[in-house]
Amino acid sequence: MHEFELIKKYFSKLAKKNKSSLELNDDVFFDRSKKLVVSVDTYVEGIHFINFKKPNLVIKKIIRSSISDLICKGVEPKYYFISGSGNKKSFSKINLSKILRSLKEEQKKYSIFLCGGDTVFSNKLSFTITSIGFSNKIIFRNKAKLNDDIYITGNLGDSFIGLKLLKKKISLNSRLNKYFVNKYYLPDLQTNISKKLLSFANTSIDISDGLLTDLEKLINNQKYSYKIFLKDIPISKNLQNLIDLKKYKKISCISNGDDYQILFTANPSKSRIILKTSKLLGTKISKIGKICPHYQKSQIIDEKNKKITLKSKGYFHKF
Amino acid sequence: MHEFELIKKYFSKLAKKNKSSLELNDDVFFDRSKKLVVSVDTYVEGIHFINFKKPNLVIKKIIRSSISDLICKGVEPKYYFISGSGNKKSFSKINLSKILRSLKEEQKKYSIFLCGGDTVFSNKLSFTITSIGFSNKIIFRNKAKLNDDIYITGNLGDSFIGLKLLKKKISLNSRLNKYFVNKYYLPDLQTNISKKLLSFANTSIDISDGLLTDLEKLINNQKYSYKIFLKDIPISKNLQNLIDLKKYKKISCISNGDDYQILFTANPSKSRIILKTSKLLGTKISKIGKICPHYQKSQIIDEKNKKITLKSKGYFHKF
Repeated sequence: MHEFELIKKYFSKLAKKNKSSLELNDDVFFDRSKKLVVSVDTYVEGIHFINFKKPNLVIKKIIRSSISDLICKGVEPKYYFISGSGNKKSFSKINLSKILRSLKEEQKKYSIFLCGGDTVFSNKLSFTITSIGFSNKIIFRNKAKLNDDIYITGNLGDSFIGLKLLKKKISLNSRLNKYFVNKYYLPDLQTNISKKLLSFANTSIDISDGLLTDLEKLINNQKYSYKIFLKDIPISKNLQNLIDLKKYKKISCISNGDDYQILFTANPSKSRIILKTSKLLGTKISKIGKICPHYQKSQIIDEKNKKITLKSKGYFHKF
Repeated sequence: MHEFELIKKYFSKLAKKNKSSLELNDDVFFDRSKKLVVSVDTYVEGIHFINFKKPNLVIKKIIRSSISDLICKGVEPKYYFISGSGNKKSFSKINLSKILRSLKEEQKKYSIFLCGGDTVFSNKLSFTITSIGFSNKIIFRNKAKLNDDIYITGNLGDSFIGLKLLKKKISLNSRLNKYFVNKYYLPDLQTNISKKLLSFANTSIDISDGLLTDLEKLINNQKYSYKIFLKDIPISKNLQNLIDLKKYKKISCISNGDDYQILFTANPSKSRIILKTSKLLGTKISKIGKICPHYQKSQIIDEKNKKITLKSKGYFHKF
């Protein structure tokens, strides 16, 4: 939704010009004096979720997508508000009980609770989730430093395959179908590492738009560039097998977002503590590249040590 | 939207069972330990606003409607988030600049500022506004006490005539048209009295659904009843003239909401301080009735001291 980046710029004039506000340049709002962190996101049927045939999974996905904004900044989500617009069919008794059960499970899993919201009639189904947490500090966007290492938690790409399956653009056996679709609907949020990030990450973001697109948002409004190595980008065994079997390009599989893994940068001196933290928590953390000077072009190096030429800014819609 | 009251009940199971949460029974969420007050509301084209031909006025109206929830509880709104779903036409450059100007004016008028939000594509235009304030205490819903006096700020009914004009159900000369339409779009929020309410009101609500409907929400889940006097319900001179001229029923004019005046109850011993506050602030406050025992039926007494029989629960859609 690149056009809406413009809108954001437009409206940033309205944000109070002080340090506690992020001037709408970040994914969350942080009021330092009140220690308050807020994320507001809208999810529309047909754009952010394909349809509402599986309300239980859609609800879980959007809740996770919302609290992920806080978790990747080192902030524990505390409560959330959900506003739904939809028709009677979307909010049928059966669907409501499914939504209720999903929310209950998410509340238990992430220690969050519902604090309010709104439900209105509309032909178009959409949800706005407001997530709130409290923290003395957060990790900001656009605070990468030159020569920082670039890290990523977990694996990328599974969710994208799940989406392709849901859109019936590819088909796989039922075991793999279930595996990838689940990764799409139920991203594993890295709650364990969230608070630890505050001690070593200079900047962070959750991958929702795609590794390369989100990486662009970390390099301080293009003050720097990045260099990443394709071979170091972590993927699951299932995805590796699929790539080998179907001759998919790895770069396409890992550039399309919805991963909700945490992308962060840290000073090279922090590599030991990051490795230690990873082992201690049992959380996969991979070093995938470096922050480079602005006069270099951002580079992706493939398995054969060759530069990959990007067709468009981080988007690889061809499969 | 009575059906959605059911949904609210449904979802109240998910709200944390402790004192700081209002268990979704109020219009705002209050976290006592964090002193945080939050209101989340969704406004849909065709339901909460007729159309988007006057973006500047629609935006002002929904911002006021949102912060009104805080103001009527004795809480000063501090910042807000706006999430818009709409098509390219709704968010054209011209409309965006109108929205921007409106928000700027509202920010200045109410000392609030924009902290974030989201804009997504959708055929159906809707906005979700999250308003946030901080307060040590708030005035809750459903805390009326037996024999409390019932009060209302400002005048009722002008907004309803404005809506009728916008829907072209009636027509008036251009001066009156402008007067009533402005009252619909630009309700005068009672910010002056907001903090003072904490010292005398037992319970309060802003009138958004209509005097009688909102009064029902104050009487402690029907633990009490009310008795109000039609002659004491404050209306503007313009509305009085219209009623005299067109033989409209006053009860119909003042029961249809969108007034955003504050309805509250207070112990009779507070009447002197309320009168004093009213004079001091120059804010019109009218005593319109009393909270009565549950074994009495709620009564509306007309100008001839006769009981008005209600056709439906507080709704008077006939004109």
